[in-house]
Amino acid sequence: MSGIRAAVIGARGRMGQEAVAALEEAEGIDLVAALGSSDSLSALTEANVEVAVELTVPAVTEQNVAFLVEHGIHAVVGTTGWNQDRLDRLEKTLATSPATGVLIAPNFSIGAVLAMHFAELAAKYFDSAEVLEIHHPNKLDAPSGTAVHTARRIAAARAAAGMGPVPDATESDEGGSRGAVIDGIHVHAIRQRGRVAHEEIQFGSEGEALTIRTDSFHRGAFMPGIVHAVRHIAEHPGLTHGLEHLLDL
Amino acid sequence: MSGIRAAVIGARGRMGQEAVAALEEAEGIDLVAALGSSDSLSALTEANVEVAVELTVPAVTEQNVAFLVEHGIHAVVGTTGWNQDRLDRLEKTLATSPATGVLIAPNFSIGAVLAMHFAELAAKYFDSAEVLEIHHPNKLDAPSGTAVHTARRIAAARAAAGMGPVPDATESDEGGSRGAVIDGIHVHAIRQRGRVAHEEIQFGSEGEALTIRTDSFHRGAFMPGIVHAVRHIAEHPGLTHGLEHLLDL
Amino acid sequence: MSGIRAAVIGARGRMGQEAVAALEEAEGIDLVAALGSSDSLSALTEANVEVAVELTVPAVTEQNVAFLVEHGIHAVVGTTGWNQDRLDRLEKTLATSPATGVLIAPNFSIGAVLAMHFAELAAKYFDSAEVLEIHHPNKLDAPSGTAVHTARRIAAARAAAGMGPVPDATESDEGGSRGAVIDGIHVHAIRQRGRVAHEEIQFGSEGEALTIRTDSFHRGAFMPGIVHAVRHIAEHPGLTHGLEHLLDL
Amino acid sequence: MSGIRAAVIGARGRMGQEAVAALEEAEGIDLVAALGSSDSLSALTEANVEVAVELTVPAVTEQNVAFLVEHGIHAVVGTTGWNQDRLDRLEKTLATSPATGVLIAPNFSIGAVLAMHFAELAAKYFDSAEVLEIHHPNKLDAPSGTAVHTARRIAAARAAAGMGPVPDATESDEGGSRGAVIDGIHVHAIRQRGRVAHEEIQFGSEGEALTIRTDSFHRGAFMPGIVHAVRHIAEHPGLTHGLEHLLDL
Repeated sequence: MSGIRAAVIGARGRMGQEAVAALEEAEGIDLVAALGSSDSLSALTEANVEVAVELTVPAVTEQNVAFLVEHGIHAVVGTTGWNQDRLDRLEKTLATSPATGVLIAPNFSIGAVLAMHFAELAAKYFDSAEVLEIHHPNKLDAPSGTAVHTARRIAAARAAAGMGPVPDATESDEGGSRGAVIDGIHVHAIRQRGRVAHEEIQFGSEGEALTIRTDSFHRGAFMPGIVHAVRHIAEHPGLTHGLEHLLDL
Repeated sequence: MSGIRAAVIGARGRMGQEAVAALEEAEGIDLVAALGSSDSLSALTEANVEVAVELTVPAVTEQNVAFLVEHGIHAVVGTTGWNQDRLDRLEKTLATSPATGVLIAPNFSIGAVLAMHFAELAAKYFDSAEVLEIHHPNKLDAPSGTAVHTARRIAAARAAAGMGPVPDATESDEGGSRGAVIDGIHVHAIRQRGRVAHEEIQFGSEGEALTIRTDSFHRGAFMPGIVHAVRHIAEHPGLTHGLEHLLDL
Repeated sequence: MSGIRAAVIGARGRMGQEAVAALEEAEGIDLVAALGSSDSLSALTEANVEVAVELTVPAVTEQNVAFLVEHGIHAVVGTTGWNQDRLDRLEKTLATSPATGVLIAPNFSIGAVLAMHFAELAAKYFDSAEVLEIHHPNKLDAPSGTAVHTARRIAAARAAAGMGPVPDATESDEGGSRGAVIDGIHVHAIRQRGRVAHEEIQFGSEGEALTIRTDSFHRGAFMPGIVHAVRHIAEHPGLTHGLEHLLDL
Repeated sequence: MSGIRAAVIGARGRMGQEAVAALEEAEGIDLVAALGSSDSLSALTEANVEVAVELTVPAVTEQNVAFLVEHGIHAVVGTTGWNQDRLDRLEKTLATSPATGVLIAPNFSIGAVLAMHFAELAAKYFDSAEVLEIHHPNKLDAPSGTAVHTARRIAAARAAAGMGPVPDATESDEGGSRGAVIDGIHVHAIRQRGRVAHEEIQFGSEGEALTIRTDSFHRGAFMPGIVHAVRHIAEHPGLTHGLEHLLDL
């Protein structure tokens, strides 16, 4: 019996090459097309592709995904640059092909996605919550987008539960050791040669602590998420934002 | 406006004393009775108790809870010794008082309960899973009941998802460093002076890791769970097993 | 055979009470005096005290230690407030009693003292180094004195080895997530209900990391350090600053 | 000004290739020869090599090192298989070339070497000590040699300080969750897909804990140790066993 007929668009980039390798190895999936930037999208229809992984650049991702939806090919999109205008146009195209599913995911690390989900659930049961991220020292921005997003979701969960601010009696902190404050949640960024991308979420109450940590050691960390999405996107017609909605949570 | 009228049975024991203090401080709860082993349960009806926390000993817990149910008092039970016979009899008593709720909870640490729940959700998304527990060196049994229970839930979640055994090429391990194997999941127990009760659940796949850790530093760790149960048991008529069912998960 | 004749000055304070209990239990030590603030120091000479633990307040510590030195009693001092003027006067008094030892220690946690020593040794072998401290949320100042001291010692060790600044490409960090910078070393302070005093020192180079963590769970963490100092101060005549000099490192 | 004239023997193997790359980049070192298994050692003398890194196989390492010593070339040896007979013969050869240094190192990870050294120093100050190692699931033996070696050094340090066994009240442990016991120290081995080589040494006493952790993320973790050895072996004539003796500890 044959598997899901899958393709990678943007197959020559670093993420694309890894995705090609991962999909070739995945059980129940047949990789039938791998397109570079100069290849025509018509190869996808010729190969009867069912699901395409889109890993290109912001300049071309919108037209690629429009092509996919118009031809009834489910899309798993890792490219950034999807602003509200683009999403609105995509929703209109999807309305013409209601059985097609599109996943736009800012993060394909299953560990990171689970960690954020768990943090959101745990938030209202603990007095204190802080977020710590560790990245390699070549990263230009701090804190990481994932850490900011995690802090916002914790803050929202606390607010929804009617909780007040986290306890903090700090009166003097000239140097700024208490970190950035995102919606009331303190966020700390560590830079260490040898590390890649790590996040630790700490919760505490009188007498107890809960810590959730996620580590990404290399780009391969994103492959299980991409494979999972290829397997399940067909069950989610329409536009889905975030890998967590394809997980069984 | 007055709060939930609560009582503690077994108020002179170590857990009981802490529960009395915690309920006295809790907003929206009025502690109206605190019974020691020689006090009559009639004090509970006289004080119009709505919810009683039962923290006694296996020998008397069954008759105490029967009294509570017969008088329509919700029960939050931390005492052990509830075998199947006892549970069957309790179910029959509850049938005569269908609006009354009874929670029997082996663990009132919200952190530990959340950690187990998260581990169960995460289990099917990672190739590897192991459980590590750390306790004070006076503990007589290893591994802890919580660690065994966690391993069983991870194993069940993997089985339900059709996963095979965890990867492990170990050929030589004369000393037994790979630990206990509970339903296929390796469990390790560390004993350290200065520690109390800690559990770490490690998940790993190619390129990524997810770690969930829960620490209990002293008996106070169980109080937020008891207070939460007192607040919410009335919404759960009938028999409930495990604090997780009263959490918003 | 009798043990070291020890005393506690400031025996009614919280630290003092713990020190009394710890010295009473310690093998090879006889606690022969425990003085409160209204007791006369003459009780020490009457009891032939050999080593006194001074745990009072800055206002009286100097005169207490002067008395001890003048009477040839070794002193283990945990009280703060020893500025340069006081130290200069103490050195003069010690010159008149050259066999007497005085230890002034800002931190009696053996774990914390070892961690700082190890950090200093490791500093020059790793490209990156950061310090993270976690304390209870009632702490008024951030970062902790121990974290600042640790950062300074790491920075000094790097400078002595001719190392440049830690690698850090951060260009945008509006919120201050990169923390305080002490002599070029980033220091982060987390506040969590349920925690007491914890420090984590992270080192990293291409492909590897070294992490040193020390946890103090309660005041009892300082007792092994005090007992050790009582046992060994007689071997260190003159003024010693820091418990590390009495350890076998 | 020119740097140390260095060579790699076994330059085509995985470690050898990394060593070549690391030495080519290292300041103050000139890589002047890189020999594969079919190359003649005479290339080393022709290139006036001062220090050679030997990364071959047990079958040829002894004759390679003998050649180096006979020609006054310092040797940094990472190959295993150096039994007592071989070491005895090497000592004899070294006696004929007393200015030449040979380092035989089972582990070139500076982090791992420091961690073991720190563990040895800390051992006598804590009641409890346990060792935990985490490796990839393809490893055939458990526990790792490094973990066993660490446990032995901790045990020896405790014995030298007259300490008794670690506290452990465990009465029932049918499954073996307490791990392997090496010279009285419990050692635990975890296997996780996505991990490489990690060791955590936990110490505990009443109220405090000290944890030392070392992570090796890939083979590159050994390069700083090899480069350091090339820089410093000339200062250590004769036979040196273990990288720690070339560190400033």
